[in-house]
Amino acid sequence: MKRSERLVAMTYYVLDRPRELISLPFFSQKYEAAKSSISEDLGIINKMFEQEGIGYLETVSGAAGGVKYIPAFSKDYSEQFVLKLCKQLEDPQRLLPGGYLFMSDILGSPETTRNIGRLFASAFADKEIDAVMTVATKGIPLAYSVASYLNVPVVIARRDPKVTEGSTVSINYVSGSTRKIQTMVLTKRSLEVGSKVCIIDDFMKAGGTINGMRNLLKEFNAEVAGIGVLAEAEDDEEDRVVEDYISLVQIMNVDDRHSSIEVRPGNLLRHI
Amino acid sequence: MKRSERLVAMTYYVLDRPRELISLPFFSQKYEAAKSSISEDLGIINKMFEQEGIGYLETVSGAAGGVKYIPAFSKDYSEQFVLKLCKQLEDPQRLLPGGYLFMSDILGSPETTRNIGRLFASAFADKEIDAVMTVATKGIPLAYSVASYLNVPVVIARRDPKVTEGSTVSINYVSGSTRKIQTMVLTKRSLEVGSKVCIIDDFMKAGGTINGMRNLLKEFNAEVAGIGVLAEAEDDEEDRVVEDYISLVQIMNVDDRHSSIEVRPGNLLRHI
Repeated sequence: MKRSERLVAMTYYVLDRPRELISLPFFSQKYEAAKSSISEDLGIINKMFEQEGIGYLETVSGAAGGVKYIPAFSKDYSEQFVLKLCKQLEDPQRLLPGGYLFMSDILGSPETTRNIGRLFASAFADKEIDAVMTVATKGIPLAYSVASYLNVPVVIARRDPKVTEGSTVSINYVSGSTRKIQTMVLTKRSLEVGSKVCIIDDFMKAGGTINGMRNLLKEFNAEVAGIGVLAEAEDDEEDRVVEDYISLVQIMNVDDRHSSIEVRPGNLLRHI
Repeated sequence: MKRSERLVAMTYYVLDRPRELISLPFFSQKYEAAKSSISEDLGIINKMFEQEGIGYLETVSGAAGGVKYIPAFSKDYSEQFVLKLCKQLEDPQRLLPGGYLFMSDILGSPETTRNIGRLFASAFADKEIDAVMTVATKGIPLAYSVASYLNVPVVIARRDPKVTEGSTVSINYVSGSTRKIQTMVLTKRSLEVGSKVCIIDDFMKAGGTINGMRNLLKEFNAEVAGIGVLAEAEDDEEDRVVEDYISLVQIMNVDDRHSSIEVRPGNLLRHI
């Protein structure tokens, strides 16, 4: 196989397996090339990934070593995406009764959810994460996207238990803004005790739902390794029950009488 | 930029944008190379994609022409994946009360859902599809995966309307196996009238839920372009209300008293 052909095949191979350790002998055998050639190829791939702002190849040395593709998107890329998202969300036609914002079209685009996942995965790149957690329904595509770049499984909490899930652990929590008591359940066998978990959701106001997930994780002796929300809404500081989170955008000054709304970048851009 | 470097960058670029038409002049400008060189590069990429069994570059000729990466996974790849899935699902520990099967761990793996998406996208590669539809919750990751390879948006029907979705269209339908009347809603602005829609779900018994989605689509004057389910369960032929579907696996002879179960490949392998 020519170098040019091998580079195409190897580029696909590493992109398809983010954070998976791939040994040089494996590549060497798969593409029938000397280890020195494979090394050079990986050098070229790494250089181009960095140049294109899509991450880098991490080299793990030693007998059990190899390379891992770490998706880490450049600040430029992230900024452009977040600013575009703010503009899309500022459309007054998105305003729904009660000051809610229609976002289903944005969450319905696989390209957009892929980009959101990339940004969070980049922000959490240096954390040790065993699983991504969300609560049904809207956060699900975002959680999968983040998890696919972090190469970890997704666990989904629900509002109600289902027969197709087996035994569950359930907690009650207080919604931060409405003060209503709600229930959240997680299937027992979906998460290993002691896991380090990244919580992802589409929207956060006071943070009651995210706090609920945090409490649910305590029941599994699991640890919160990071919290990411697509959009945070303004809320009275004193109501907020979640402090340490990353947000892509911040929704401000929602005025449904005058059909106006302001959307600013969240704190994510400060984390990458 | 050297050819070797350009190949890495171009491979990433096309893989990241399945089914998107990219013009030669665009590549030529982006990578500062002659159109003849770009053409040769695309030839190498196409050859390797076919050799690796991950699809091909479709050439669209004419002034508005260019190339599109069509993800189409080889029969070998699909067979291996489906057989592995059957084995995973045959574990008797998956049996839940009522003859249900625990699949959350499999659906929780982004790598697995990505592969499932690839297989369906390959099976539907020659259909014209404008959107992928599913009903909350378990089919969501599969729907996104299929949609990302088909490069179309996802629409999600729900069992109950939410304030964050705006006005909805609602239908009642009869569950095929339990004969219970249930409700399904879809946000009005989530789907354009006349769309060609691919329905994706995780599980099908008699097909009542899928039939519900089909009826909901009628309200939008939308057309069903294809139906894909991860697992179909045995059911009395006369109960079945959905005929024309593609399944990855078929669950047979569930016996929760003797903790035994049989899982066979579904009809997908006959479609690719």
